[in-house]
Amino acid sequence: MSLTDPILVEVLRGDSVECVHRGALVVLDAAGRVVFSVGDIEQAIYPRSAIKALQALPLVESGAADRYGFGHAELALACSSHSGEPRHAETAAAMLAKAGLTEATLECGAHWPSGASATQGLARSGGKPSALHNNCSGKHSGFVCFACQEGINPTGYVGIDHKVQRFVAEAVGEVTGHRLDRETAFGIDGCSIPTFAVPLKKLAHGFAKLATGEGVGPERAKAFARLRAACAAEPFMVAGSGRFCTDVMGLFGERVFVKTGAEGVFCAALPGQGLGVALKCLDGASRASEVMMATLIAKLVPMDEAERAKFQRFVTPVMKNWNGITVGGLRPTFS
Amino acid sequence: MSLTDPILVEVLRGDSVECVHRGALVVLDAAGRVVFSVGDIEQAIYPRSAIKALQALPLVESGAADRYGFGHAELALACSSHSGEPRHAETAAAMLAKAGLTEATLECGAHWPSGASATQGLARSGGKPSALHNNCSGKHSGFVCFACQEGINPTGYVGIDHKVQRFVAEAVGEVTGHRLDRETAFGIDGCSIPTFAVPLKKLAHGFAKLATGEGVGPERAKAFARLRAACAAEPFMVAGSGRFCTDVMGLFGERVFVKTGAEGVFCAALPGQGLGVALKCLDGASRASEVMMATLIAKLVPMDEAERAKFQRFVTPVMKNWNGITVGGLRPTFS
Repeated sequence: MSLTDPILVEVLRGDSVECVHRGALVVLDAAGRVVFSVGDIEQAIYPRSAIKALQALPLVESGAADRYGFGHAELALACSSHSGEPRHAETAAAMLAKAGLTEATLECGAHWPSGASATQGLARSGGKPSALHNNCSGKHSGFVCFACQEGINPTGYVGIDHKVQRFVAEAVGEVTGHRLDRETAFGIDGCSIPTFAVPLKKLAHGFAKLATGEGVGPERAKAFARLRAACAAEPFMVAGSGRFCTDVMGLFGERVFVKTGAEGVFCAALPGQGLGVALKCLDGASRASEVMMATLIAKLVPMDEAERAKFQRFVTPVMKNWNGITVGGLRPTFS
Repeated sequence: MSLTDPILVEVLRGDSVECVHRGALVVLDAAGRVVFSVGDIEQAIYPRSAIKALQALPLVESGAADRYGFGHAELALACSSHSGEPRHAETAAAMLAKAGLTEATLECGAHWPSGASATQGLARSGGKPSALHNNCSGKHSGFVCFACQEGINPTGYVGIDHKVQRFVAEAVGEVTGHRLDRETAFGIDGCSIPTFAVPLKKLAHGFAKLATGEGVGPERAKAFARLRAACAAEPFMVAGSGRFCTDVMGLFGERVFVKTGAEGVFCAALPGQGLGVALKCLDGASRASEVMMATLIAKLVPMDEAERAKFQRFVTPVMKNWNGITVGGLRPTFS
């Protein structure tokens, strides 16, 4: 963790800066050339959920996605940190059912939907949260479907030494060029799988490969294109109502793949520019990592005036209070 | 906003530091002598909800609290940022009823309870959130009861030029020694009242006065003692189930008055030591401001071994995931 990374986002209230957020970010091409960076880009960070599209590679490359007939919605959900809205939970259940499984196979743990409306709706209907509402249930459904396809017993699939996680870590390690095994610094994620520390620069390199299909074999390039197309076609499945990833991919379609991770991580693949992006807000704030990512997208992705106008709310979000009064906002301090 | 304040809290996952939080903090006595400090303590910050006990002074000093028969529960709620649990909302409604008012008088805005269980319970019962569930409804109920006592029309009471806010700002300005008016930097708070920027050091000085009753007149000293006693007797009313302020005051009773504010602010009054505390986590994270405050309490307040053992979970909180697995924790990096 770098001690010197600069302030990248300010939070304003009235006339004053109320909070500041520091971070590091890097934009790379598929050859590994740094196009733009701020802060320490060699520091290793836990990518958390930002790399779910890379973690979904075994599901696609094994043929499991084809065998179970997964389309855009299912593949997008496998790459998601969803809000636990009804369609998210239903799609996860349907993925499991296609492999003859139920939510009982999931080892991610149950929690109330991360989306406030989804939680209120579930409570209003007298429902209780299950593992299907866990924001990682799509990724986990993908894991166990992959296990079934490969004839691997899914029990204990979240463990670092389980075959499922070894296949996943191998794929992510190949794409980022950073070996991931028990020798790598790792932690346990919210959904119980290991999260391995990866240098920020290598993480961005992985997303440049996702953006271009360069630097990987033809089968992997096809899997990348399929996962990007799925998320572009079904951005709701990647996050949920009113969420940054859903709304930004909804605006730009196949031109921007973007995925958040816990504790201030954000990654993106920009196919038109052939670039990958990785960033970390050092204090873990999503509000700031979103502004950092939006600022980079505004800088890197050509857009017409109408798009730029629609996108401005992500670059400089306005904060309103419970009476709808504008009380302040966020702004980037780099450009 | 200081650019140089040091890292005060680390967030660990597995073997690695995943996030860091910077801040500034100061401990003062009632004479204004700095006992301990880290970072820039001259910087002006928005105190937000951390000064609700000071904002409750007009309610007590005007005689309104006596006239309407407010006991510990009502006064603690007037100092609170509550979770919107049933007893919180009911007590706010009862305060208003004693002055012949209803929730229609409140101008704080409605929001779903900030407490997750309270939101689930409200939705399950088919209810909808009202202004009574707003975390500031106790403070606002105090404001309008004060207005009634003084014969002030409460309409528009959240406005910076309304008599209610002028009385409140005058009291807070006297206690902190920092004039609060239209010449002072200010912003609009979540509940629509003005929040004036106050130097961190002066904020701590105000809380040293709250702790001791020194440096103010006898009536104000009495009001301070009454507000502290109320929060010590009814800590649930100040925050809610499982919340830092409630649990810490529940543990220490009258020995520690502590109150959080949005965007990483925390203030405390330590009567036994005659000290006031004010701190700000620069990125606004509550998890870090709590660790900073707990570390100061552990350092400043004598406690027996059993208390220290119980209190450790606030100084070095453990993070568990949805399966109950320990994944990391927070730790202070100052002492």
